[in-house]
Amino acid sequence: MNSARIRRTVQEMRAAGLKQLIVSSPSSVFYYTGKWVHPGERMLALLIRDSGDASLYANRLFSLSSAFSDGLVEYDDTDDCVSVLAQGLGDGVLGIDKTWPSQFTLRLQEARPDIKMRVGSACVDAVRMIKDEDELRAMRESSLKNDEAILSVISRLRAGMTEKEGAAMYLSESEARGSSGPAFDPLICFGANCAEPHHISDGTVSRKGDMVIIDVGLTWKDYCSDMTRTVCLGKASDEMKRVYDLVKAANKAGRDAVRPGVRVCDVDRAARKVIEDGGYGKYFIHRLGHGIGLECHEYPDISSSCTQDERVGMVHSVEPGIYLPGKFGVRIEDLVAVTEDGCEVLNHVDRELTEIRL
Amino acid sequence: MNSARIRRTVQEMRAAGLKQLIVSSPSSVFYYTGKWVHPGERMLALLIRDSGDASLYANRLFSLSSAFSDGLVEYDDTDDCVSVLAQGLGDGVLGIDKTWPSQFTLRLQEARPDIKMRVGSACVDAVRMIKDEDELRAMRESSLKNDEAILSVISRLRAGMTEKEGAAMYLSESEARGSSGPAFDPLICFGANCAEPHHISDGTVSRKGDMVIIDVGLTWKDYCSDMTRTVCLGKASDEMKRVYDLVKAANKAGRDAVRPGVRVCDVDRAARKVIEDGGYGKYFIHRLGHGIGLECHEYPDISSSCTQDERVGMVHSVEPGIYLPGKFGVRIEDLVAVTEDGCEVLNHVDRELTEIRL
Repeated sequence: MNSARIRRTVQEMRAAGLKQLIVSSPSSVFYYTGKWVHPGERMLALLIRDSGDASLYANRLFSLSSAFSDGLVEYDDTDDCVSVLAQGLGDGVLGIDKTWPSQFTLRLQEARPDIKMRVGSACVDAVRMIKDEDELRAMRESSLKNDEAILSVISRLRAGMTEKEGAAMYLSESEARGSSGPAFDPLICFGANCAEPHHISDGTVSRKGDMVIIDVGLTWKDYCSDMTRTVCLGKASDEMKRVYDLVKAANKAGRDAVRPGVRVCDVDRAARKVIEDGGYGKYFIHRLGHGIGLECHEYPDISSSCTQDERVGMVHSVEPGIYLPGKFGVRIEDLVAVTEDGCEVLNHVDRELTEIRL
Repeated sequence: MNSARIRRTVQEMRAAGLKQLIVSSPSSVFYYTGKWVHPGERMLALLIRDSGDASLYANRLFSLSSAFSDGLVEYDDTDDCVSVLAQGLGDGVLGIDKTWPSQFTLRLQEARPDIKMRVGSACVDAVRMIKDEDELRAMRESSLKNDEAILSVISRLRAGMTEKEGAAMYLSESEARGSSGPAFDPLICFGANCAEPHHISDGTVSRKGDMVIIDVGLTWKDYCSDMTRTVCLGKASDEMKRVYDLVKAANKAGRDAVRPGVRVCDVDRAARKVIEDGGYGKYFIHRLGHGIGLECHEYPDISSSCTQDERVGMVHSVEPGIYLPGKFGVRIEDLVAVTEDGCEVLNHVDRELTEIRL
């Protein structure tokens, strides 16, 4: 168990009025215990008490006993796991992980009707949001590997290839650098597909003059990277250049706005204003970014409605975009780590418009 | 909305004392609505009332309005989705999908403290368990494609290749047959890795004399296939042959035991007895099988503790295995669909021991 992280969580629990907390998402359990457990349908629960004690309830199938000198409560498939957990609960308000399957919460409520339960994930989010030095080191390395992989993909882009081939190319570049896997399905979009932020790479064939969005990330030492570059296959049109420059300026404005104490909604605003002032406001149809770490999308949303302050150690994306339906789209995404006086940009691939010679 | 399926579900709800039911897993929502929605962190809820009315609550981002003439309630990211749903609830006991994230259940309990909520998934399981003709047709086709793909992989197995290469081979064979993707990560194990039922294909290199377990499945028209064959790279030892024959006989005994009215625990027993009588009982360390359909693992478990009767239209795996730690393992898995007088086996790859000539 990582006692420093549990101590910080207990502070959050006290502030939130929780006496005990069930943490269940695999990434959070890993965060506190150093062990990945993917429970499938089975119950997994790390119970943190406001005394600072913590116990992991896990099925014996996962063979965790050698990894824990204490704090592990194993159950068998033939046990009533919820009643084992119910017996371990103390008194007082219990926070529940937002993603814990309802079957466990509902059965726990039946077993312990005396305990008030409410969503308790904010206590974990607040702690995981601030990366420590080990985490920052892994995230820097993850993004550097991602930089290398995207550069290699960009250098091999050609007219006549499919989006899926581009995605496969990224996967092999990322694997060649020792990544344990992609942080999400790599997204390579050609032409008008770039205008759909939720496009999935398919058999679309690249053509001369296409804008190409490359949105990719990998995992390295358990930590995710995530970046986007947009390039042109051949010469970009004047409209493409205009839109590209606006997105580039918005990306810079977003990064420049990041510093401790600034609300993330104001960072979103700083980037969005550039695009609005350029006349493309209605084509920037998503939030500016998202927290990232063990998972690719973590708290907080970097959006117009999130009033969380930027704090030293937070890592999140800055990814403005402009999407012109039926025509093309541009997105430029970097990860930033908040520092005492601003931010460290974790990506080092330049942001000038690359026109690939065909 | 598929009204026949909703009608059958309402019967189950009445028998279970539920006035209303929230269905949330993407596969169940697809089962009733014909639409796949992957909500990520957002709320997705199909509310079925015991009157037979059903409404799907979904974020407007998923652009579902063209697919529903009625029964769709859309909300925006800026709405309080739980309160929108709370207003749509009637009175009386509410069943909740076992996998629905607890954040929604807990917030719904706050919004509607007058309503008793309990796990309601059994009503959906009981309906999805019985496949209709369209589903059976898709599952037959899915297994036939899986048969073809595994035969092609077996014909290309050689000493000196890695498990990962074998897995990639299966994926390309399955894609070449039009599958929309694997039903699960293909599992190719060599040698002693075969003795670990939860091994993940890695860089292990095949050697002459290795047993090879190939456990693979694909999706076709939304339905999963899943089968396992075990072959030998070269000549099998006497022990390998003895173990193989025992597993083959257990697979047959399991399939032979399947007929309407027999409890699935007795099907498990029939197969397990063969292996126990052969002296290898303690090396058959998992359940006999699992239901399958839109998901690879569905209700019911085909295990010693499940007293569900076999019923016409159920589809499940029969997959006995023997695992000799540090040496080798054998598993032979087929899918069966329960018929009036027994079962139809959906796989058609033979079960004789194949010794691959090197």
